[in-house]
Amino acid sequence: MAYRRTPAAQARLDAQRASVLAAATALLSEHGYAACSVAAVAQRAGIATGSVYRCFPNKAELVAELFREVVGREVAAVRAAAAFEGDLPAQVASVIGTFAGRALRAPRLAFALLAEPVDPEVDAERLVFRLAFRDLIAGLIAEGVAAGRLPAQDPQLTAAALVGAVGEALVGPLADGGPAEQLVPALSGFALRALGHPMPPAGPDRPGGGTGR
Amino acid sequence: MAYRRTPAAQARLDAQRASVLAAATALLSEHGYAACSVAAVAQRAGIATGSVYRCFPNKAELVAELFREVVGREVAAVRAAAAFEGDLPAQVASVIGTFAGRALRAPRLAFALLAEPVDPEVDAERLVFRLAFRDLIAGLIAEGVAAGRLPAQDPQLTAAALVGAVGEALVGPLADGGPAEQLVPALSGFALRALGHPMPPAGPDRPGGGTGR
Repeated sequence: MAYRRTPAAQARLDAQRASVLAAATALLSEHGYAACSVAAVAQRAGIATGSVYRCFPNKAELVAELFREVVGREVAAVRAAAAFEGDLPAQVASVIGTFAGRALRAPRLAFALLAEPVDPEVDAERLVFRLAFRDLIAGLIAEGVAAGRLPAQDPQLTAAALVGAVGEALVGPLADGGPAEQLVPALSGFALRALGHPMPPAGPDRPGGGTGR
Repeated sequence: MAYRRTPAAQARLDAQRASVLAAATALLSEHGYAACSVAAVAQRAGIATGSVYRCFPNKAELVAELFREVVGREVAAVRAAAAFEGDLPAQVASVIGTFAGRALRAPRLAFALLAEPVDPEVDAERLVFRLAFRDLIAGLIAEGVAAGRLPAQDPQLTAAALVGAVGEALVGPLADGGPAEQLVPALSGFALRALGHPMPPAGPDRPGGGTGR
């Protein structure tokens, strides 16, 4: 950069950028990408359209940055959930419950992040973030294999498959708002099976099963 | 429609449409969506640009129809593979081997179908086709559960998760052309575990394992 802003000017710009992203997040959570026009974001943030353009050159860059910011929070939440101490079923329930639970509590936003048809710029960000989730999960699987808690497997492959599995299983319920209260335990069960965790005796009606609700 | 074409004119249009889609499929398989401009497709098909526009009003509609046509073939191939007679591991290997094997033999095309960042129109088609794959797999799972070959589960959920799992696990290898020869058996193993199929004794080095190569 050929010049520097004064600290005060930089602070103003940072604050404006944050308020633009907050307004865009609110619009995305309510109505999806189509609602995130520069004009609508400016109105929501209570600033002039020109001020939005001072932070982001166009809608595509605004939406890409919005996506990175919102998904970054999700990655951080899952990372924290993965640090949960406990046996494997408890850890899987923590990770899946966090990811899917957050999605189901903000379904319009989650659909926008996971699957809503959108510009190639955001699609490219989706690929990056799916790799971030994959690497996070792969690290946990590799630890589990090394500790003998999981059978031998390719941690990267299982992790990619689980990221795809959870995302895809959420898309339908998020899109049509179908019944979702069984989704988290069902997905946790899927993940445990897929990881090769020894299953409790089979049967839909085994006595004393389940962990309460 | 307010008028009808003569049968000869309709046949000519159908033939031209087919040759446009064939040219677009070739370009997509070689270079992805960016290569499928109307001008490039016309050149590849050996016809005038205006003739392409007689079949498709713009690139977005051409690419969406191209996507539907190519993915339709993949759905048909998987449907045929699912009719394979045999025990569950053989059936899963047939379905996964068909889907993933076809993808790995045409990696650029498969990446375009599964994950390449592209216009919202194609993204919307992706959602439709993921549901088609899901419903196909869910039918098989429901049969397996009814026949007692699989433990009780929500067939739709497991099917959606498996569609997402296989697609996601393929994206990385397809994108960077990494080693893939272990991918199909590893994915089949993942799917069998996830379905709740009883696993053979654990251990990476069990004797007599594998089905040869």
